Amino acid sequence: MKKLELYRHLKVQLDLAVEAHQLLRGESGEEIPGVRMDEQKLEHAKVTIITVETDEGVEAIGKPKGKYITIDAPEIRTSNYVVHEDITQVLADQLIELMNLKEDASILIIGLGNWNATPDALGPQVIDKTMVTRHLFQLSPDELHGKMRKVSAIAPGVLGITGIETAEIIRGIVDHVKPDLVIAIDALAAGSLERVGTSIQLADTGIHPGSGVGNPRAGINEETVGCKVIAIGLPTVVNASLIAHDVVEGVFKQFVTSPSLYKLYKGIKPETFSKIIDDVLSPFQGNLMVTPKEIDTLIKTTAKIIAGALAISLHPGVDREDYERYLQ
Amino acid sequence: MKKLELYRHLKVQLDLAVEAHQLLRGESGEEIPGVRMDEQKLEHAKVTIITVETDEGVEAIGKPKGKYITIDAPEIRTSNYVVHEDITQVLADQLIELMNLKEDASILIIGLGNWNATPDALGPQVIDKTMVTRHLFQLSPDELHGKMRKVSAIAPGVLGITGIETAEIIRGIVDHVKPDLVIAIDALAAGSLERVGTSIQLADTGIHPGSGVGNPRAGINEETVGCKVIAIGLPTVVNASLIAHDVVEGVFKQFVTSPSLYKLYKGIKPETFSKIIDDVLSPFQGNLMVTPKEIDTLIKTTAKIIAGALAISLHPGVDREDYERYLQ
Amino acid sequence: MKKLELYRHLKVQLDLAVEAHQLLRGESGEEIPGVRMDEQKLEHAKVTIITVETDEGVEAIGKPKGKYITIDAPEIRTSNYVVHEDITQVLADQLIELMNLKEDASILIIGLGNWNATPDALGPQVIDKTMVTRHLFQLSPDELHGKMRKVSAIAPGVLGITGIETAEIIRGIVDHVKPDLVIAIDALAAGSLERVGTSIQLADTGIHPGSGVGNPRAGINEETVGCKVIAIGLPTVVNASLIAHDVVEGVFKQFVTSPSLYKLYKGIKPETFSKIIDDVLSPFQGNLMVTPKEIDTLIKTTAKIIAGALAISLHPGVDREDYERYLQ
Amino acid sequence: MKKLELYRHLKVQLDLAVEAHQLLRGESGEEIPGVRMDEQKLEHAKVTIITVETDEGVEAIGKPKGKYITIDAPEIRTSNYVVHEDITQVLADQLIELMNLKEDASILIIGLGNWNATPDALGPQVIDKTMVTRHLFQLSPDELHGKMRKVSAIAPGVLGITGIETAEIIRGIVDHVKPDLVIAIDALAAGSLERVGTSIQLADTGIHPGSGVGNPRAGINEETVGCKVIAIGLPTVVNASLIAHDVVEGVFKQFVTSPSLYKLYKGIKPETFSKIIDDVLSPFQGNLMVTPKEIDTLIKTTAKIIAGALAISLHPGVDREDYERYLQ
Repeated sequence: MKKLELYRHLKVQLDLAVEAHQLLRGESGEEIPGVRMDEQKLEHAKVTIITVETDEGVEAIGKPKGKYITIDAPEIRTSNYVVHEDITQVLADQLIELMNLKEDASILIIGLGNWNATPDALGPQVIDKTMVTRHLFQLSPDELHGKMRKVSAIAPGVLGITGIETAEIIRGIVDHVKPDLVIAIDALAAGSLERVGTSIQLADTGIHPGSGVGNPRAGINEETVGCKVIAIGLPTVVNASLIAHDVVEGVFKQFVTSPSLYKLYKGIKPETFSKIIDDVLSPFQGNLMVTPKEIDTLIKTTAKIIAGALAISLHPGVDREDYERYLQ
Repeated sequence: MKKLELYRHLKVQLDLAVEAHQLLRGESGEEIPGVRMDEQKLEHAKVTIITVETDEGVEAIGKPKGKYITIDAPEIRTSNYVVHEDITQVLADQLIELMNLKEDASILIIGLGNWNATPDALGPQVIDKTMVTRHLFQLSPDELHGKMRKVSAIAPGVLGITGIETAEIIRGIVDHVKPDLVIAIDALAAGSLERVGTSIQLADTGIHPGSGVGNPRAGINEETVGCKVIAIGLPTVVNASLIAHDVVEGVFKQFVTSPSLYKLYKGIKPETFSKIIDDVLSPFQGNLMVTPKEIDTLIKTTAKIIAGALAISLHPGVDREDYERYLQ
Repeated sequence: MKKLELYRHLKVQLDLAVEAHQLLRGESGEEIPGVRMDEQKLEHAKVTIITVETDEGVEAIGKPKGKYITIDAPEIRTSNYVVHEDITQVLADQLIELMNLKEDASILIIGLGNWNATPDALGPQVIDKTMVTRHLFQLSPDELHGKMRKVSAIAPGVLGITGIETAEIIRGIVDHVKPDLVIAIDALAAGSLERVGTSIQLADTGIHPGSGVGNPRAGINEETVGCKVIAIGLPTVVNASLIAHDVVEGVFKQFVTSPSLYKLYKGIKPETFSKIIDDVLSPFQGNLMVTPKEIDTLIKTTAKIIAGALAISLHPGVDREDYERYLQ
Repeated sequence: MKKLELYRHLKVQLDLAVEAHQLLRGESGEEIPGVRMDEQKLEHAKVTIITVETDEGVEAIGKPKGKYITIDAPEIRTSNYVVHEDITQVLADQLIELMNLKEDASILIIGLGNWNATPDALGPQVIDKTMVTRHLFQLSPDELHGKMRKVSAIAPGVLGITGIETAEIIRGIVDHVKPDLVIAIDALAAGSLERVGTSIQLADTGIHPGSGVGNPRAGINEETVGCKVIAIGLPTVVNASLIAHDVVEGVFKQFVTSPSLYKLYKGIKPETFSKIIDDVLSPFQGNLMVTPKEIDTLIKTTAKIIAGALAISLHPGVDREDYERYLQ
């Protein structure tokens, strides 16, 4: 059975470009035209850059043209704080390059997600830890000049809390604040458990719920808000359907000695398979997430890393040695 | 010494129109031209309506033209929940009349203030307790029609948290949500302790930090946001300078038998007096508030009353008997 | 493959007695000696009472002797607040019978779980909504007599927050507060998704992490704390392994026309099967939970129902008509 | 009028020994028998050590025998984070000397106060920022040995939240956890605004609500809990009566040229004066606090300093360079 096709039947969207890319290549075994991949190994992190370059690439991978940088750092899950600082610096380095900020740039940070549901609270927690500076420039511009940039920050909540589409709120605020750059932080869903809490994706293409498919009002990107939008995402959950699929695949791999049986399994139609999964998960119509029990620790740790990398990359006067001072 | 003049020297702003009115009349003993006052006594509340009718009235009282309704209900401070329901209904009745909503009106509730500082957290706590419905109308408009109105709600934070002027955020959201009515809820400062936690002011003139004086960008009113704005305020603190003044006055009243002494006191110039107060309070440059120790209970109780009155007055299908079901 | 045996290999513990009972009977098709089951159908709820009566029953079901009452109310997941009140009353009725309180009883409510991780925050949120009264009896005992009982309440946190075993904290508090009854509220794990957010279990046997197996220090029951302990639990998650198993079973049921194949599946050893599941879930060593995306709403709704039922059942002067007044 | 006597009439308790000492000496101008004072000036802090040595000293100052160390650091109110680190180190140094911990000591940190009322939330916020380690020693004792000490931590809430006297909860927990040392952190009331948010008091005498007067059950000290208790306190409010008094005094100092008038003022009896103050503050029966508007920032900053000093002083492997890593 083709995994890619199954995903379509399950209406599963891969938030991480690196996973979508892997899935595509996994099936064809070939390079994807219009999509480039570069990798870099560091001591505590692997950096993978997927660049979607052409319309053909967009079509294949289902994501807009642009750069998708993934930092894989499994040691985030340890409690080695020294290594966490190293990962924070790696993230800051990538951000600095991707943002390419002019000296007096003004930045609006948006923490997406629901602060009442821990697995979705990454964005709001990064905002909580971020020092805002925009209003200080009116009091003491000279003191801050060259050391700090103008940072504002807001966690706009979710539809169920405000009754308003998040994109509407953000567009309204951007219209009035007129930042040079928007940075949107969000909790993502991964395709596999390995990436939960350990992969961080940066993208210069903004946020595209449903990845560009459908509702144009929901996108938060340069086109809709009028300034560059960088998205920072980190998977905190896996879609339950995908876990289910992986277990079934694991079971059938047991039958590898019986080729006829394995063939039988491979012959199950994606629509049949997705129906079985849907039936089991039906009490919540597939709106289920698989998440680690220690989700509060995972969110706290990664919010600190992201807020730290933002402090280093946004403010010329803040570096690896002292960024923790500026975390709220 | 003239209290009114002293207030000006202390740069104290009376948030409650009823207090500003009292202060003015207290000195002259006369009606204020262009300002009307009506009173109504109910079982558990006194309702006072100040109407600023002419430019002359605006000049005198320092507040924009419009209606200022104050509900005084000292029993809010008791834990008699049955009486609280009665007060909730009184507030709802006043709101219904003041809002005069058409059947399909859409309402945006704004909870002003800082959720991290309890005395300033009234607005955010009302938002927490308010059920939003605007997004439900897309799913089941017929079921809700005639029972609910479209309510959205947000607590935008304060300048120190977001780096953005609150009025900017609100204007941005209103531009995109386009409600028929904005309701802004805020914690106020009273001129006397009696009113802390017991007076609720409704005004159809919006929010005017500095009461219309100065910065036009900071106002949240029909002119700046493009739709009617009703403000609901409740004092949670008293300015420390005013308490200080009242104590001094109390001391001198002791000398009533010595007219020469009392005269001496009355002869202290307001600027001298305000300087003494400023000196004592100088370590925080007057940014001090006097607030009851049980501030958390006071905020919780009054947030419930306001959220309850909003539920009753905004939704035709919610009444005194069942509003508590809809509080979040 | 025997489900029961698989569960043992997966080290899955069924928190709900009604599920453990079902699993046992499902295999044997027979009554379980020493365990009695009674059922009652109400308009919006089904009440199932499992009574573990003998040592033989304890051995079979793996739970201590006592009464386990499960209230199944699928409409909790709807937003029909009137029905929620009905379910609240059903829960209160069962509690009243199970507690059998004397008039002047003093009750300590314990909210177990981690307030920082939403799926585990049920206990703390019930505490948040509960009005404590114990301290009021010193001020106005006569006024409260016959209307209220003495209620105290605490959320002790979890090991990762305090560094202390929860049972140690509770035992310490009980030693000093000396209540007549302890009520412990906790989020549970269910064996199937249908029960998440819809089944409420009451037990008069206390809390037995690991269900009485192993660590005797961890139990919170009459033996260890010195007074009767009633546990109220509600599943908020399902163990990921169980979901995985159910999907695999669903896949194989497709092969029902091929008896040889189905036989093959049934022939997989539980240890092999549990190993496959463990491998897929290995990045978090099985410490994974499956939980609905709307977990914040689910916790809020069920915390309100439980806190409401506690108010009605603990205080003679509170009933269905007015309990919402007393929720904090 | 004698200030000391007035305080007694107002039933004002000075939480800071350094203020009680100052008040006593201010009147007599003499050394207080049985009470010693030592001072030390550092770059960013002044350290004052009051030692109550004899029963005579206890009687005079109204505080139990022991050491009261006050660190005055006005720069806490600035946002100079480098200086904050310096103050953190000063506090850590004093703690290390006062605690005199053996290598394998186990410490229980108690965060007193009400997390729902910002001015009273210092203790709970320190707990939030503190890393607990006690439970980790069971997993990897060798790795931690010599680097960390066993730390547990809890914020027990207040009577209005739990219905239980805080001292009862703490005693219960200490009985079971059996730490070598208890550290209790609490928000205090100061006698003057200068000390709000800038003075930190350490005492080796535990916590004595009402300073040893009256209710013996309420004390948290070696006698009642069975191990050494160190209290860390920081004023976040001033009693409103004291501010009132200071303003009146300021007014009368204006009359210094009129000795007869000043004499008149000095002739007001303390009981008369306290009655005037009580009357003005009567709506809340004196339960009023004066607190800065920026109370949330003040609490956050000082909680970070105290939590940082605890990390440095409790764990041999943590120092000024890296303590921020360990703050939660």
